[in-house]
Amino acid sequence: MTESLVVGVDAGATSTRVSVHALDGRRVGYARAAAGNPTAHGLAKAVAAIGAALKEALDSLDGSRVAASLAGVAGHTAAMVPELAALWAAHGIPQPPVYVRDVTIAYAAGSAEPDGSLLLSGTGAVATRVAGFEVARIADGLGWLLGDQGSGFWIGREAAKAVVASLDRGRLPARDDILTDLVLTHVLGQERPETPRAIADRVVRVAQTDHMGLAALAALVSKAAAAGDPVAEGIVGRAAGHLVDTLRRVHVSGPVVLAGSVLTNDGPVRDAVTELLAGERVATARDGAGAAAWLAARPLLTEPEAASRHAAFTTAP
Amino acid sequence: MTESLVVGVDAGATSTRVSVHALDGRRVGYARAAAGNPTAHGLAKAVAAIGAALKEALDSLDGSRVAASLAGVAGHTAAMVPELAALWAAHGIPQPPVYVRDVTIAYAAGSAEPDGSLLLSGTGAVATRVAGFEVARIADGLGWLLGDQGSGFWIGREAAKAVVASLDRGRLPARDDILTDLVLTHVLGQERPETPRAIADRVVRVAQTDHMGLAALAALVSKAAAAGDPVAEGIVGRAAGHLVDTLRRVHVSGPVVLAGSVLTNDGPVRDAVTELLAGERVATARDGAGAAAWLAARPLLTEPEAASRHAAFTTAP
Repeated sequence: MTESLVVGVDAGATSTRVSVHALDGRRVGYARAAAGNPTAHGLAKAVAAIGAALKEALDSLDGSRVAASLAGVAGHTAAMVPELAALWAAHGIPQPPVYVRDVTIAYAAGSAEPDGSLLLSGTGAVATRVAGFEVARIADGLGWLLGDQGSGFWIGREAAKAVVASLDRGRLPARDDILTDLVLTHVLGQERPETPRAIADRVVRVAQTDHMGLAALAALVSKAAAAGDPVAEGIVGRAAGHLVDTLRRVHVSGPVVLAGSVLTNDGPVRDAVTELLAGERVATARDGAGAAAWLAARPLLTEPEAASRHAAFTTAP
Repeated sequence: MTESLVVGVDAGATSTRVSVHALDGRRVGYARAAAGNPTAHGLAKAVAAIGAALKEALDSLDGSRVAASLAGVAGHTAAMVPELAALWAAHGIPQPPVYVRDVTIAYAAGSAEPDGSLLLSGTGAVATRVAGFEVARIADGLGWLLGDQGSGFWIGREAAKAVVASLDRGRLPARDDILTDLVLTHVLGQERPETPRAIADRVVRVAQTDHMGLAALAALVSKAAAAGDPVAEGIVGRAAGHLVDTLRRVHVSGPVVLAGSVLTNDGPVRDAVTELLAGERVATARDGAGAAAWLAARPLLTEPEAASRHAAFTTAP
């Protein structure tokens, strides 16, 4: 008898990942495709991305062996359900995927315990209390314009604001001004208009043309803070403070899973948040597609089996 | 001999106005058209708006009588110069318009003194030091994303942030919560999703779809603050503080001209700024197109004539 398989889908803001596992946790297929947020990128593009990743992850595996599938899709819409059902059927998979919120998958990527909390800071920022692998409460996640405090976008915007405010006060960028130097090089390349004010105006124009591009400055803030830049250190401290405040509004007990690039990558924000959470059990999210596959497999396993195989499912490929 | 005329153009973010005056200041023609910012709306639309307003303002007046013209165009580009020269020539006006920065016109709309400062808060916010009716220094005006602190957009965004943050903390909007009630009615009409969180998510979606629409909330903040709402009062106080800080970075002497809807309309922000500027000579900008015409007329008048006729030119039509 051939072994049963499970399929996990993690379709987020920057990429779509599909992972195929045996029930013991062994990964037998994995693929990435473009971002597949149906709200942001349109239904057709999202379905195409998930379809491409599913095809590549299954490869020569027989779809009829898939006993369960689970998908977390950022910006999920009801219109997606029949589209993915058709995709799954085309691969001979007996059942369409079950849907869970993307934050549930991010939590499960860091913990096998059903109750705990997630603190996520990527492009956006949100905290959720999780009970029985369901979202029980949510804080922030209010978007780049009005919320997402401590997110990559928030950090990047704070950096850009600090740089243009300094230029607007007539300060020419100095070589030892690490953050300004990193931000100006990222935004303008080697181009430097003549006066501080003209440089500021140019940064403002570039930022307003693609405001979400500011999120890319978050990595430069980490770099500058690690090198001792006081403005960057201040931004990091405020970001960590906001994130922990957001978490405290939902957290009651259990592990705290850190997720999102700002909190999973080693660096000053992660360090500051971890320090503020001294006394909590802090875990770090690993592979989301593997976690989705693990959540799909859970009903087919005993509790001890599920717990002991969590690491095998979620270890990054 | 027929009397000489002057033409003033004030093309801003929300409308284009053209005013025609005799040299004694009497207004003999005036017209409004749609916004004509060539950077934001495209050159063709901007030129068409100015052309329509010029035609209507001149009406049956003979273009050859126009001795001088002056234009301030928000988002002015060099490509505009030949287009407006052709428009002016088509009306038989001997000389094309002279261009000045829109902030210079806003200043001249409030003062006949060549040296002083402008503090403007409309959709954006900026302060300029003016010397000889030229911009000598500028502070802020760094756009909605990274600056414009204390502007209508800034005030509206602070209001929306306060409302969604309160909802995110699980507080259902109460009837006596004046600001929340005004903001939710403006943004959602009578629609009210069931939970505070669902209301917050809906506000976030609407705001992100048209972020500049947040500027319209500034008037609601004024209304709520006037009615004693403490959150609105806090936003007003911070807006006024930011605006006066921005002004202090450029102001040295002479009158302070308040311009832009946030500062020219009676209300708590104007009151708070005026109070913080106790001891300064504070004036209020009047009609910008009339001020542009006055600046056009200045070289044709003696200094005492220009000073005594300023009110006639700039009194709102």
